[in-house]
Amino acid sequence: MTIYNAWIFTLGTEVVQGRIVNTNASYLGRRLTLLGFRVVGVISLIDDVDTIARYLTIVLNEKPKIIVTTGGLGPTYDDRTLEAVAKALNKKLVLNDEAFNIVKEKYKARNMPLTEERIKMAYLPEGSIAIPNPIGTAPGCWLEVEDTIIVSLPGVPQEMEAMWESLIEPKLRSIGPSLYIAEILLKITGVSESSLAPLIKNILKDSPPEVYIKSHPKEGMPGKPIIELYIMYSNKDKEKADEVAKEIMNKMINSIKQRFEAAIETISMNIS
Amino acid sequence: MTIYNAWIFTLGTEVVQGRIVNTNASYLGRRLTLLGFRVVGVISLIDDVDTIARYLTIVLNEKPKIIVTTGGLGPTYDDRTLEAVAKALNKKLVLNDEAFNIVKEKYKARNMPLTEERIKMAYLPEGSIAIPNPIGTAPGCWLEVEDTIIVSLPGVPQEMEAMWESLIEPKLRSIGPSLYIAEILLKITGVSESSLAPLIKNILKDSPPEVYIKSHPKEGMPGKPIIELYIMYSNKDKEKADEVAKEIMNKMINSIKQRFEAAIETISMNIS
Repeated sequence: MTIYNAWIFTLGTEVVQGRIVNTNASYLGRRLTLLGFRVVGVISLIDDVDTIARYLTIVLNEKPKIIVTTGGLGPTYDDRTLEAVAKALNKKLVLNDEAFNIVKEKYKARNMPLTEERIKMAYLPEGSIAIPNPIGTAPGCWLEVEDTIIVSLPGVPQEMEAMWESLIEPKLRSIGPSLYIAEILLKITGVSESSLAPLIKNILKDSPPEVYIKSHPKEGMPGKPIIELYIMYSNKDKEKADEVAKEIMNKMINSIKQRFEAAIETISMNIS
Repeated sequence: MTIYNAWIFTLGTEVVQGRIVNTNASYLGRRLTLLGFRVVGVISLIDDVDTIARYLTIVLNEKPKIIVTTGGLGPTYDDRTLEAVAKALNKKLVLNDEAFNIVKEKYKARNMPLTEERIKMAYLPEGSIAIPNPIGTAPGCWLEVEDTIIVSLPGVPQEMEAMWESLIEPKLRSIGPSLYIAEILLKITGVSESSLAPLIKNILKDSPPEVYIKSHPKEGMPGKPIIELYIMYSNKDKEKADEVAKEIMNKMINSIKQRFEAAIETISMNIS
């Protein structure tokens, strides 16, 4: 089975300095996972072309199927993501006709002149496809290199999400792994995380490698720990995905009930 | 002036898959910045020892003053951060007496036996100092290598924050850059981000390199764009920090008022 690895770059000094909470990372991590990609890492970096280009180069060497970047496409002096993408790929930034038309029309509709800062947004790495921005002014960028698709989107969440849902996700559905994901979330009251650990380990030992189980301790009462247990399994076959996830859940519940006096409830089941 | 670069690693498959929003990253990014560190990047990775060790090695080569990791210290099969730290540094994981006492006392108080999974939490890389966890059971880890301090904390935000505030931050204050940070946030109504861009660029040209200005477009009415403008300046001298930040603010306001009919208000001033 081909594995479709994905990496996310959320760029911007305001992100690394913690002046905003990085919801772009969780949004994209979730969407890519549900499309069947294996998200390996998320990297946030300050607005420095050399730093961004250096880490793009490192990740490109891992030959992921896709890298998605957010941020740094706007008109200001520190919006230099595409310069870094071009640098990492040894490509030139060129005025992209499509992107130029998008920018031109945006400012025409707003009755504003085309300044140097605005035209800058239409410079994309050679060979890129411009992605229209239905909300803001900066176009996005889709670029295919040898092993990897690089998608660059703006950092403003509303713009990024609108572009992702209207254009990127449909494109990825047709070329991506198109896996079905089955997810189950259980709430377990009365067993500590470290007591659950060997049970999980045991079940994983006999499960297919795509099974993912993770415990998250929640705030419980003294002597009454609460654990949320997340079970995920993905498969090309929808029924198979659901079947295995439910099987793992049942194994898990039986294994806990055999050893502990625990209350177990299902919080959610993302199963078709 | 020595620059105190910092990197943050927020580890966990649930983080990269977007099942949780990464508030640990924004918390640590903020705290480190306010301590005067220059946070360069935040890296989130899946729970895979080789991947984590590989990226730790890459970042260690940049010789930052500090790397803070969160997540992967617990008792479960995928909690393997310290194994990765040890691997990146070519050190052994050894049973740390201090950490062992912390873990032993925790379970004694809870009337629970010491299992293999629980003792695992007391294995730290050789030469580490154990950091008590006032809330949960997994101790943290403080390790100094040639150029870099590596601090590893749990992923549960309440535990991580309690350990940071009670122990890590006081320790860093005594060895860190101890800079004063002056911050000003303005709300500008009636000027677009791309119209502000050349003004900001111009002011930065004549400012000291520690000045940071960033515009963030907010949702305004049609024809009435709203921009939040963040100004930051850091200096060893408190009065100097405040003075320069206010000077930049006044320059910025004058420069905008000269060219546009804009309403400008101060949202906040983090100045002593």
